[in-house]
Amino acid sequence: MNYKYINLKFKPNPLKFVIGTFYLEPAKNITFEQAANEIAAESSIGTWTAITTLTKKIKNELGASVFYLKPQENIIKIAYPVNLFERGNIPQFLSNSAGNIFSVKLIKNLKLLDVQLPPIYIKSFPGPAIGANEIKKLFKAKNRPLIGAIIKPKLGLTPDKQAEIAYYCFKNGIDIVKDDENLTNQNFNQFEKRVISCLRAQKKAEKETKEIKAYVFNITAETEEMIKRAKFVKKHGGKIIMIDVITAGFSAVQTIRKKNLGLIIHAHRAMHSAITRNPKHGISMLVLAKLLRLAGVDQLHTGTVVGKMEGGKKEVLNTNKALTCKWFGLKPVLPIASGGLHPKLVPELIKILGKNLIINFGGGLHGHPHGTACGARAARQAVDAACQGISLKKYAKTHPELKVALDHF
Amino acid sequence: MNYKYINLKFKPNPLKFVIGTFYLEPAKNITFEQAANEIAAESSIGTWTAITTLTKKIKNELGASVFYLKPQENIIKIAYPVNLFERGNIPQFLSNSAGNIFSVKLIKNLKLLDVQLPPIYIKSFPGPAIGANEIKKLFKAKNRPLIGAIIKPKLGLTPDKQAEIAYYCFKNGIDIVKDDENLTNQNFNQFEKRVISCLRAQKKAEKETKEIKAYVFNITAETEEMIKRAKFVKKHGGKIIMIDVITAGFSAVQTIRKKNLGLIIHAHRAMHSAITRNPKHGISMLVLAKLLRLAGVDQLHTGTVVGKMEGGKKEVLNTNKALTCKWFGLKPVLPIASGGLHPKLVPELIKILGKNLIINFGGGLHGHPHGTACGARAARQAVDAACQGISLKKYAKTHPELKVALDHF
Repeated sequence: MNYKYINLKFKPNPLKFVIGTFYLEPAKNITFEQAANEIAAESSIGTWTAITTLTKKIKNELGASVFYLKPQENIIKIAYPVNLFERGNIPQFLSNSAGNIFSVKLIKNLKLLDVQLPPIYIKSFPGPAIGANEIKKLFKAKNRPLIGAIIKPKLGLTPDKQAEIAYYCFKNGIDIVKDDENLTNQNFNQFEKRVISCLRAQKKAEKETKEIKAYVFNITAETEEMIKRAKFVKKHGGKIIMIDVITAGFSAVQTIRKKNLGLIIHAHRAMHSAITRNPKHGISMLVLAKLLRLAGVDQLHTGTVVGKMEGGKKEVLNTNKALTCKWFGLKPVLPIASGGLHPKLVPELIKILGKNLIINFGGGLHGHPHGTACGARAARQAVDAACQGISLKKYAKTHPELKVALDHF
Repeated sequence: MNYKYINLKFKPNPLKFVIGTFYLEPAKNITFEQAANEIAAESSIGTWTAITTLTKKIKNELGASVFYLKPQENIIKIAYPVNLFERGNIPQFLSNSAGNIFSVKLIKNLKLLDVQLPPIYIKSFPGPAIGANEIKKLFKAKNRPLIGAIIKPKLGLTPDKQAEIAYYCFKNGIDIVKDDENLTNQNFNQFEKRVISCLRAQKKAEKETKEIKAYVFNITAETEEMIKRAKFVKKHGGKIIMIDVITAGFSAVQTIRKKNLGLIIHAHRAMHSAITRNPKHGISMLVLAKLLRLAGVDQLHTGTVVGKMEGGKKEVLNTNKALTCKWFGLKPVLPIASGGLHPKLVPELIKILGKNLIINFGGGLHGHPHGTACGARAARQAVDAACQGISLKKYAKTHPELKVALDHF
């Protein structure tokens, strides 16, 4: 049979084509070629039947082509003419190359594993306004990871209690203290009150420690409300805002970036695993990370390898590389390791992921038997030891908070 | 073992709790109870370890409870105190009840199947501004489905060609003609030019047919750009805007609704199947549909049962019911059946889904052997026949366009 969207002799020019790599399992009684053809058609100009309105010119200029097809590995690669895509529009990118294709009956499973983008397309996006290098410079932490603390419990604290806990973290070696992903503006902890309380704690700690500190405020909401919240943070001297980028969505993320508020955008990826976790279906974290770098977040959660959340070593390393590599002038994004971390895991974590990241502690800090302040010290001590190449066991001999943490976790 | 977030004796008050129903498969060597407990903890106030900052008061007031647990069916139900949720904030709802939980290592698969929401929470959202009933009244189509045509090819036509094809559709019995999900503002078809051309076609057809017609413009982009595009449509006399709601995201959808532009919001769900299709993992279409009704879209794609896209009968019926049932004063959303439809499928479609919907034709219209105009007539004839209870075969005897379509598809 002749499949109009398959051309295995085609060698796409990387300056003119977007390349998508997919895992593909066809549905029962459907051949691999038939399913591959349908995906290329549906994600460019085609539909399920021949139509009278499609001209040869359109097919030649805008048709996608399957140019690599390996049924034995379940892999196909599709070349999309870059003009299929509106410049600077992430939602349109997804609607085109990761939209209806997941719904077609001809497939059983389909996953968008990777995308390669031509420079003309990449350059149509702003990328991070601040980026990894300036963030590390700001905190004077060129040769060590930044250390973050997530306030726990996730929900239920008053703004003053939140600020008090943040202060203990800041005061004891933590650079960045953050809201959790589900804390926004609830009755028990209203956003504006939290901003005022926590920035007071931030400034007090900065004055006392002579170090740079930053509280991360979760502004996740409807877009205009997010802008309002971000401006409130800015007005009161904050440095970082957080967006739950998957639940808020790409349109809003691009809008916040466009506002150029002079704030670091911390991207939390809550809900990504509904899309990324199945190895056979959905969209990979690598693809989402590339799109978020285009959109212009400054920091992004990408996994810990060693913590409570799933995410294999290779996947996290690939994602972090995509965030930090040279990319046609776009600034790098700082990766965040977060979820189930405690001091004992730090040397292994740094060994795997390096020092160019933020290490976040939540339960592994507030769960310290002697409380938050000692937990913060233990976290800092673990990072300092690992960066100096000293074993935690040895370092713990002269650092009692770390000793207690190692015995406990 | 004692699981702090499981309480099978608990009977949640539906006025005060959000109820989430999940499909759950624990990871290897993890018990069903252990995984269930972790999900309730992670989606409310807990974390992976005991923490010194969690008080009994917070646990009592804000802790989620697994109150139904059936390992043999892989089903759990969790009750969330409504105060966990910020009112009127869909992204926060997802970050809380459908966020990190998909990532935890203790689970193998997890799907949020359904949510029941207390009236106090539902009423914090606007719901549709216009809604299903007013739309049907506008088109004077109380006793039949509305008939939509998707312009094909999806991409590549100039604005004038797009308008010409739209005109043939409008002129021959189609109510609504729409952009496809990946057409936004590309070089070959710029948004503003398309609006002007297609609204000219709309007005011409309205004048000639004395019927109400509407072109649906896909405004999907960064939020402020979407607002700008929507206002442009409004200014030039348009009636309907389309948003790819999943790829754009909930923050932006809520923002567009909030603007109250006096335009019908048509919600395309491209990419939903990356989240909804796996029966064991992700979020169901039913849940997304409920959230989109809260957010305030007026029309939503929910499946065809009989077309090219997957989606079982029960699932589509449940989703349509959730969009149209009485719901504490929120207006109903008009379901859209779209994807692989052609005239022959219409009687079965209406038998299954009823008449309270929009039936969209794409390839099944422009693929008519005699072209778009005849395809439009055949589509309209099929709907008219089905609504009058006449078999297509019989109706085709006096309607040649339908006859040709039935022979072709």
